[in-house]
Amino acid sequence: MMILMRDGATETEVEGVIVKLHEVGAEAHLSRGEFKTIIGAIGDRDRISQIPFEALPGVETVIPIMKPYKLVSREFHPEGTVVKVGGAELGGETFVVIAGPCAVEGEEQMISSAKAAKAAGATIVRGGAYKPRTSPYSFQGMGEDGLKLLALARQETGLPVVTEVVDVRDLELVCEYADMVQVGARNMQNFLLLREVGLQEKPVMLKRGLSNTVEELLMAAEYVVRGGNAQVVLCERGIRTFETATRNTLDLSVVPLVKNVSHLPIIVDPSHATGKHELIAPLSKGAMAVGADGVMVEMHPDPKTALCDGPQSLAFGEFDSLMRELKALAPALGRKI
Amino acid sequence: MMILMRDGATETEVEGVIVKLHEVGAEAHLSRGEFKTIIGAIGDRDRISQIPFEALPGVETVIPIMKPYKLVSREFHPEGTVVKVGGAELGGETFVVIAGPCAVEGEEQMISSAKAAKAAGATIVRGGAYKPRTSPYSFQGMGEDGLKLLALARQETGLPVVTEVVDVRDLELVCEYADMVQVGARNMQNFLLLREVGLQEKPVMLKRGLSNTVEELLMAAEYVVRGGNAQVVLCERGIRTFETATRNTLDLSVVPLVKNVSHLPIIVDPSHATGKHELIAPLSKGAMAVGADGVMVEMHPDPKTALCDGPQSLAFGEFDSLMRELKALAPALGRKI
Amino acid sequence: MMILMRDGATETEVEGVIVKLHEVGAEAHLSRGEFKTIIGAIGDRDRISQIPFEALPGVETVIPIMKPYKLVSREFHPEGTVVKVGGAELGGETFVVIAGPCAVEGEEQMISSAKAAKAAGATIVRGGAYKPRTSPYSFQGMGEDGLKLLALARQETGLPVVTEVVDVRDLELVCEYADMVQVGARNMQNFLLLREVGLQEKPVMLKRGLSNTVEELLMAAEYVVRGGNAQVVLCERGIRTFETATRNTLDLSVVPLVKNVSHLPIIVDPSHATGKHELIAPLSKGAMAVGADGVMVEMHPDPKTALCDGPQSLAFGEFDSLMRELKALAPALGRKI
Amino acid sequence: MMILMRDGATETEVEGVIVKLHEVGAEAHLSRGEFKTIIGAIGDRDRISQIPFEALPGVETVIPIMKPYKLVSREFHPEGTVVKVGGAELGGETFVVIAGPCAVEGEEQMISSAKAAKAAGATIVRGGAYKPRTSPYSFQGMGEDGLKLLALARQETGLPVVTEVVDVRDLELVCEYADMVQVGARNMQNFLLLREVGLQEKPVMLKRGLSNTVEELLMAAEYVVRGGNAQVVLCERGIRTFETATRNTLDLSVVPLVKNVSHLPIIVDPSHATGKHELIAPLSKGAMAVGADGVMVEMHPDPKTALCDGPQSLAFGEFDSLMRELKALAPALGRKI
Repeated sequence: MMILMRDGATETEVEGVIVKLHEVGAEAHLSRGEFKTIIGAIGDRDRISQIPFEALPGVETVIPIMKPYKLVSREFHPEGTVVKVGGAELGGETFVVIAGPCAVEGEEQMISSAKAAKAAGATIVRGGAYKPRTSPYSFQGMGEDGLKLLALARQETGLPVVTEVVDVRDLELVCEYADMVQVGARNMQNFLLLREVGLQEKPVMLKRGLSNTVEELLMAAEYVVRGGNAQVVLCERGIRTFETATRNTLDLSVVPLVKNVSHLPIIVDPSHATGKHELIAPLSKGAMAVGADGVMVEMHPDPKTALCDGPQSLAFGEFDSLMRELKALAPALGRKI
Repeated sequence: MMILMRDGATETEVEGVIVKLHEVGAEAHLSRGEFKTIIGAIGDRDRISQIPFEALPGVETVIPIMKPYKLVSREFHPEGTVVKVGGAELGGETFVVIAGPCAVEGEEQMISSAKAAKAAGATIVRGGAYKPRTSPYSFQGMGEDGLKLLALARQETGLPVVTEVVDVRDLELVCEYADMVQVGARNMQNFLLLREVGLQEKPVMLKRGLSNTVEELLMAAEYVVRGGNAQVVLCERGIRTFETATRNTLDLSVVPLVKNVSHLPIIVDPSHATGKHELIAPLSKGAMAVGADGVMVEMHPDPKTALCDGPQSLAFGEFDSLMRELKALAPALGRKI
Repeated sequence: MMILMRDGATETEVEGVIVKLHEVGAEAHLSRGEFKTIIGAIGDRDRISQIPFEALPGVETVIPIMKPYKLVSREFHPEGTVVKVGGAELGGETFVVIAGPCAVEGEEQMISSAKAAKAAGATIVRGGAYKPRTSPYSFQGMGEDGLKLLALARQETGLPVVTEVVDVRDLELVCEYADMVQVGARNMQNFLLLREVGLQEKPVMLKRGLSNTVEELLMAAEYVVRGGNAQVVLCERGIRTFETATRNTLDLSVVPLVKNVSHLPIIVDPSHATGKHELIAPLSKGAMAVGADGVMVEMHPDPKTALCDGPQSLAFGEFDSLMRELKALAPALGRKI
Repeated sequence: MMILMRDGATETEVEGVIVKLHEVGAEAHLSRGEFKTIIGAIGDRDRISQIPFEALPGVETVIPIMKPYKLVSREFHPEGTVVKVGGAELGGETFVVIAGPCAVEGEEQMISSAKAAKAAGATIVRGGAYKPRTSPYSFQGMGEDGLKLLALARQETGLPVVTEVVDVRDLELVCEYADMVQVGARNMQNFLLLREVGLQEKPVMLKRGLSNTVEELLMAAEYVVRGGNAQVVLCERGIRTFETATRNTLDLSVVPLVKNVSHLPIIVDPSHATGKHELIAPLSKGAMAVGADGVMVEMHPDPKTALCDGPQSLAFGEFDSLMRELKALAPALGRKI
């Protein structure tokens, strides 16, 4: 932590900062320039970060030097983490494809999707039982009945399933049925939910919030890991910008960025990011090329009747083509699929 | 709802859309141009909005015509709603000032703040007992002990109190102590929490999410009102933009905008929006000038020791000055204070 | 400038930075922590800022400490600058209202607007002769004929006129006719145009770019002032965000922010910011309340036939009402009008 | 164009819109719903788009139906355009790599860069002679001397060169030396510059503005093509968002999006988008995977001494590695390099 004093800060003001640092057992290193005095704070990061420096007299600004997360950083854990979900491994050599409908709508829709996903080569099945929707008048998901259909899909295909939890009171129930628990973009900073998923044992997929920075995403993951659950997979799904041609703006730069600073796997969801099925294939290939550990793609037996996100869902045939393109690309990028 | 067909859409494709509309009892009005065919959908809005038009063959785009909210719209309820919180009224002639510390930190801090708020002329007291924090290493609030101190503050001053609920499991407890329940910016689209606060009777303050549009804010309010609780006050608290000179970008345009389309009161929180105590006074006056029903301002007996948001908190003397400025301004804007 | 070295940076790497500093005659102040070494650079700001520190081995990041602008800063010139445009003064006690049509369309339109502006109490007249338009198929302005009509408007009303220059080759011509030269939002970082308006003597109105930070706005003003022309008025006109309910998001926080760090006057353009005539009045009052030195408002004898920006233009009667509201408000804010 | 009337718009108001349409020779198609009347405008797009519908009484909103650009649309020109720059072709089977320093700094720097670029397999050389810089105190480029060094680089390597024009008065000079003229991000809506580059014959590279939508980018290209020059290559270089971990946010989705709606080639500039040299390789591969026609990459003989953008420049060895990775990837994506 560097504390930059205002032009003409008095000795008393400088002293005031030093006293605060000493109170938490930290040392102060002074650097005096012609106009500015800078105080470097050396000591226990957590204790130092509790000091409200910017409210102290004479302080102009505070410059954090250490990254605010620890457990998810690559310094803390230089080896990449591999997260196991049933037989699938995220974070290893294999590029994992998660596929399935946006929402579980019924047995035939769910089971046929899971089978088509498996047939084409997907290794994890997705499906939403609880749907957070902007409008109270939209379909809100099948709830536990949906969870049961996911379990049935696993039974029929042998593939593990991932589904979103939106209410902390449903967490236990969701964990009974799912192999991986998803925390959605709108809940990325629902800190109590993060804490609770950190206290249970199922692997967690944590989606980046629409307007959250990469650092905030890593801090959210820190909440989960700190609870004791290090099986976390991050997911980039587009951020909100001024551009309206796509639903959100997919930020593929975060993939190599996260790989540099964190040991957690990261996948990409091009379906929610773009909202357009014709963009799924090129952006899935883009995700693989920038180094993502997988993609999560929405598919549906009949996108035009989907209760949720039809325009961004692939028909089975389109999904099959996508998988063939990804398989053709993988070797050139040193990946298996 | 207008459905715009692609150039060269076939008769079969146009017919496909019409069939879907008839299935939900709606009528289709065709308008054929040289290049484009447009289908106007007339009928029950909720049923029509369930049709995934954009996934139908030949459809280029869908243009919503009706606003997606009803109960919170001014068409539905032309008179402005006045929300009563203890003796205070939000949405009437009076410009309401809500003041208090970001977080409840202890008895002396809370009670002295409440007394200073009252002495200066505030009519509602705020204080956070549960604090959603980006870092798991930051102070997370006093919990129920904080709620008890809020109740004590009310007893000592006679002013009603507002506090945030972050966990749906705490809602009943929060309602026992608080006169108004706050749903924070990060929970604006925590739809289950919205539903639950809509099922209880305490008035609700709903803060705009950092990256949510005005329309989404009104949809979130629709969740609450639809549950049965129409005592909702909206709160603009800044949105996330590229600008880093302020913590967020305060969007004062939404105040007259919301007044035009909704009957709900709306207040402004300049403390969280700017993160800078020196901007609170001018922006509070700006809020009054654009027609807000009040402001919510953070204050602290000693901002430089605050456990949360010190840099944006006013000292008691600064808060007193602010109140005097607002009182001087109010008559010129036809407001009481 | 603070140079933060990476964890484990070698002595050679630290030495490499110090050598670079010495090369430009600057001193290096070292601060060594447990993990991090920080080097404070003391010396001539301009020479130091030329060093590409971030490309030097071992450097993690560079933290600028001094503001990157000088001539426009309040430290450099503690008194507020007052810019004179004809008889009007921007930056003093008077709240200045600039009014007129978006584009000059013809003699009757321009002259009637100027007269209505004057009758209601405006003190500067605006009108665009060169219009930068997103579409090549939109009306692009009357050019020199428009400038002549502006000069005629000045002759008829005695009020000074302001108009935009978009092509550096037209600057001399524009200066012949106008009392103040406007650099529009899209040209805020057209550095050659900034340099040229800095070399002539007419006062300059510099509008903030749609996606430019306050710091970049001040840097753009630095270009002009550095050329020798210190008669610069800044103008906030809304920034581009994810919100689509208004054309842009008016950022009123920048007004007190700029007042703190710069001596230049700043006005607000609510017409371009919102794109909605019904929001002009509340936001003009908001602008006055946050401390702006004036507003620039679009008006038109018949907004529904305007060739440009009709929806955001006020009819004469509406403009007259606005002026009456502003006059009623001014005394409570210590302003004349 | 669809004109949506307000609830309860009168017959006279509806008639007013129809009269306006008839005035420009267009037809009006009425569609009356229970609450809303919608008027479809059929006729000459350019003439209809001049009508300020939103300012007409009773009009709620106007919905554009046709795309606002014509000449650059794929409907207008279904075949993809191939732009020839010397021996290089952009828009064909070959993935083109443009490489060179951010700024021309001197003969040795420029010539060695060009030779290294060629040796590694690049087919066009870049280098800035005129540099638009945020600060007036930063290096502004070598001007004509820089252009001469670019010409020398072409002579030495046989590769064509591209360089930016910032001042319309320099255009003729730039065209004398360069094989392709670049319009930079800050000038994307410098409409007069667009018009002028449209009137000359050298191919044009048009970079997307930091805060411009894809539609605005295509409208800017329309300005150039309408002038008579259809040899335009678009370039995605990152947009400004709230994320600060990268300089800008690279929006790779626009590549397949543009390919769908326009016939113009599009390339990607990962250097300016990210500002970080360690992200160039993964994002260049990502650009190829999403279907871009090439990349433009900054390189420098000694990035740590670069006068401009050192942190994002590749050293020669890094550039050589990048080329090898791209060559290995190309066949799997059906591209030559």
